[in-house]
Amino acid sequence: MNLPIVWHVLGWIMTLEAGFMALPCAVAVIYGEESGWYFVWVALLELLIAVPLIVNKPRSNVFYIREGCVATALGWIVMSVMGCLPFYFSREIPRFTDALFETVSGFTTTGASVLSDVESLSYCMLFWRSFTHWIGGMGVLVFLLTVLQMPGGSRMNLMKAESPGPTVGKLRPKVRQTARILYAIYFVLTVAEIVLLMAGGMPWFDSVTTAFGSAGTGGFGIKNDSLMSYSPYIQWVTAVFMTLFGVNFSFYYLLLYRKWKQAFTFEEVRTYLLIILAATGLIILDLRHVGLAPADTVRDAFFQVSSIITTTGFSSVDFNLWPETSRTVLVILMFIGACAGSTGGGIKVSRFSVVFKTMFKELHSYVFPHSVRKIKVDGKSVEHEVIRGINVFFLTFMVLFTLSVLCLSLEGRDLVTNFTAVAATINNIGPGLELVGPTGNFGLFSDFSKYVLIFDMLAGRLEMFPILVLFYPPTWRDTLRRRRA
Amino acid sequence: MNLPIVWHVLGWIMTLEAGFMALPCAVAVIYGEESGWYFVWVALLELLIAVPLIVNKPRSNVFYIREGCVATALGWIVMSVMGCLPFYFSREIPRFTDALFETVSGFTTTGASVLSDVESLSYCMLFWRSFTHWIGGMGVLVFLLTVLQMPGGSRMNLMKAESPGPTVGKLRPKVRQTARILYAIYFVLTVAEIVLLMAGGMPWFDSVTTAFGSAGTGGFGIKNDSLMSYSPYIQWVTAVFMTLFGVNFSFYYLLLYRKWKQAFTFEEVRTYLLIILAATGLIILDLRHVGLAPADTVRDAFFQVSSIITTTGFSSVDFNLWPETSRTVLVILMFIGACAGSTGGGIKVSRFSVVFKTMFKELHSYVFPHSVRKIKVDGKSVEHEVIRGINVFFLTFMVLFTLSVLCLSLEGRDLVTNFTAVAATINNIGPGLELVGPTGNFGLFSDFSKYVLIFDMLAGRLEMFPILVLFYPPTWRDTLRRRRA
Repeated sequence: MNLPIVWHVLGWIMTLEAGFMALPCAVAVIYGEESGWYFVWVALLELLIAVPLIVNKPRSNVFYIREGCVATALGWIVMSVMGCLPFYFSREIPRFTDALFETVSGFTTTGASVLSDVESLSYCMLFWRSFTHWIGGMGVLVFLLTVLQMPGGSRMNLMKAESPGPTVGKLRPKVRQTARILYAIYFVLTVAEIVLLMAGGMPWFDSVTTAFGSAGTGGFGIKNDSLMSYSPYIQWVTAVFMTLFGVNFSFYYLLLYRKWKQAFTFEEVRTYLLIILAATGLIILDLRHVGLAPADTVRDAFFQVSSIITTTGFSSVDFNLWPETSRTVLVILMFIGACAGSTGGGIKVSRFSVVFKTMFKELHSYVFPHSVRKIKVDGKSVEHEVIRGINVFFLTFMVLFTLSVLCLSLEGRDLVTNFTAVAATINNIGPGLELVGPTGNFGLFSDFSKYVLIFDMLAGRLEMFPILVLFYPPTWRDTLRRRRA
Repeated sequence: MNLPIVWHVLGWIMTLEAGFMALPCAVAVIYGEESGWYFVWVALLELLIAVPLIVNKPRSNVFYIREGCVATALGWIVMSVMGCLPFYFSREIPRFTDALFETVSGFTTTGASVLSDVESLSYCMLFWRSFTHWIGGMGVLVFLLTVLQMPGGSRMNLMKAESPGPTVGKLRPKVRQTARILYAIYFVLTVAEIVLLMAGGMPWFDSVTTAFGSAGTGGFGIKNDSLMSYSPYIQWVTAVFMTLFGVNFSFYYLLLYRKWKQAFTFEEVRTYLLIILAATGLIILDLRHVGLAPADTVRDAFFQVSSIITTTGFSSVDFNLWPETSRTVLVILMFIGACAGSTGGGIKVSRFSVVFKTMFKELHSYVFPHSVRKIKVDGKSVEHEVIRGINVFFLTFMVLFTLSVLCLSLEGRDLVTNFTAVAATINNIGPGLELVGPTGNFGLFSDFSKYVLIFDMLAGRLEMFPILVLFYPPTWRDTLRRRRA
């Protein structure tokens, strides 16, 4: 293991985070809040640790997938621990575990909160809380790649470890260019949402934080009732933008370069939109007896489907009170998740496409044992290695999921709460059902359960393996041996 | 598709079933029950249909995996439809769907019942109900293979389609010999259980039906409270035999031929026993505050773990009332299931072993990208084709599971009932939690949901693909084309 280069990357991550903290400071200045100082102190602390790490250049440039995983996993952990300190030092979230949970939930774009009264936080803290979504959505290492000149292998291996989806879509031959284009699209879409929300009469602070929440598909609201009390216009804008941020960003790239045909035959995007349509339709049918106005039913159904499939987790209504079919549809959407290459979490539409194709290929081979069929996506056959990766992902996901539910069950709460709490964190959604529904929160769990869920959020955001590699003893064997020698 | 040979197999299955019906007739004679006549009529009906099918020998001996799947799936459906007629004609189960559900539940060794008052059935019906477990446990086609001379390819392809587990363990070079040895072991173990139960003072009728229920890992009780009111001795004997019937039968074969070393290093069996031990321990810990005598706690815990992991479904206690950790452990055991090559259902221990090994292999490849590690079971490396099969099985299982829960949710019942109802049927267990817990029953579902669950029971018993092949249109394309021409 080339640890010096890992330290180097960690140094840059802390520097970057310190820089990001300038924004909540600015908010504190605008609203004249004392608590802004905590960001200054924490930023200084980060720089104090980071500078020696950066100055001390690593001798070897070796950077394999192992280094990529460890740097990414440690990077996200360090970022969360440092990022939670302003909440903790200011006593606005007085317990460390809670502050850490909230920050991990932010960076991983989960949006699960331990707070029962969000509105009691100061503006700068609320801003930082939502801003972590925006940072985590596209990925902090991807951001680093846009600004830093990193040694050879590191770029691809960092991108691989942090980007969601079964394959890393290199839009441009150079990783750096790809990262820049992605961030440009991300930035433009976010600004568009802010403008449209403000056009609907939403205050600027609310618009910016809501846009951060939807852009990163995070879902932290700045009101206790999430988006329930905002106007229908604002709910529609948010719902549409959530859907847009769940689209594979390669789609926007294709639009940008006027590759219309490729864009409009993009299989994953079409499947994703089809699922949204079908799920919304099913829920509208199911809600027809609830007695709402048709316009409200359609808006609530679309908003909630968009919010859950993109793993954002905003709510326009308390869907925990919905009839059972709608609840079940939402639980299924939790697992499907958004497109690969978007800011959304979950298992990803493209993985499910491949799963269905694998099933049909198997069925076909029973009927025609000699046929040689290949699994194709977008007209190209999928490599064996990718299919294998998807299978392993599914199995690992299931195992982690089951063990987490078992851990949570030790506290004796009902199965639906435990099941959906894990589903909502490992898929980076936010709210679940029952006690962790839209009007509940995660504060009720013990510290042990909170750490299990923190682990799940990180494992979900980094798609299992980087975080597992960190806890796999052989990863550290040669490092320990060298130290002992 | 070589349909004539499929018809031929179906003819034999019906003849066999007609023969099996002699036993409930004998029971009716013993107890002087009029309803015994229904078995005579149905058996005659079966022979009437079967004889022309058997006499009309197929011209072609072509019998590929497709024919194997269709013959098996249709065989199980025909057997269930014919087998439910005595219940239906005698009006002891007055609705056809209910009678069919009960019979499918019997043959697939699920043990889920629609009856709220089992004790109102006549003895011959109760006997037939439990006897279906015994027939279905080892498989009716496997039985056919022991007595029939079938054309070449058919043997292996029938065995493959009906036997549980990722690989078909051929104990002897000839399929027929293997089938005979399996049935011999099955028979001897069943007799042993009957003797031991009777030695504990259980009436002979109760002993025989309970032994059928545990041998097939079925779980139909002949009392409304399953095994709750029997003595601790009888519960212990049943618990131990359930565990024994969940062991891979190759283990007994190895014992029989004194291959001690191979037997005692049998990986799947060791893992299976270890899981039972761990789960029992965990539940004992969880139940320590419930206030039972230690002996009762240990017995209940072991009985329920053994009953659920082997997918039998007997209950010695209403585990729906247990604390949440114990309930969660039981739900997890539902999915793990027994050993491959046993009479038990579920996903099977060997599949989970391979899944864990796949995960660690993947982790290892992140850390050492150049290492070439093979997945090994019992010291032999597992073929790629087997691993692929396991992956596809898991994915298909998940998809069917999810769709079934969605279908059940249309009725508006709670998620835990729906989730565990599907888990208990697709894994061939019997009872679930909440409304379908040990003291509940499946009668509450609509006909639509019952057919979904019937499908799940068959899909679970035949391990997905044979039953899916039946409903896959290309299976029938050439047959239809020929008919039209």
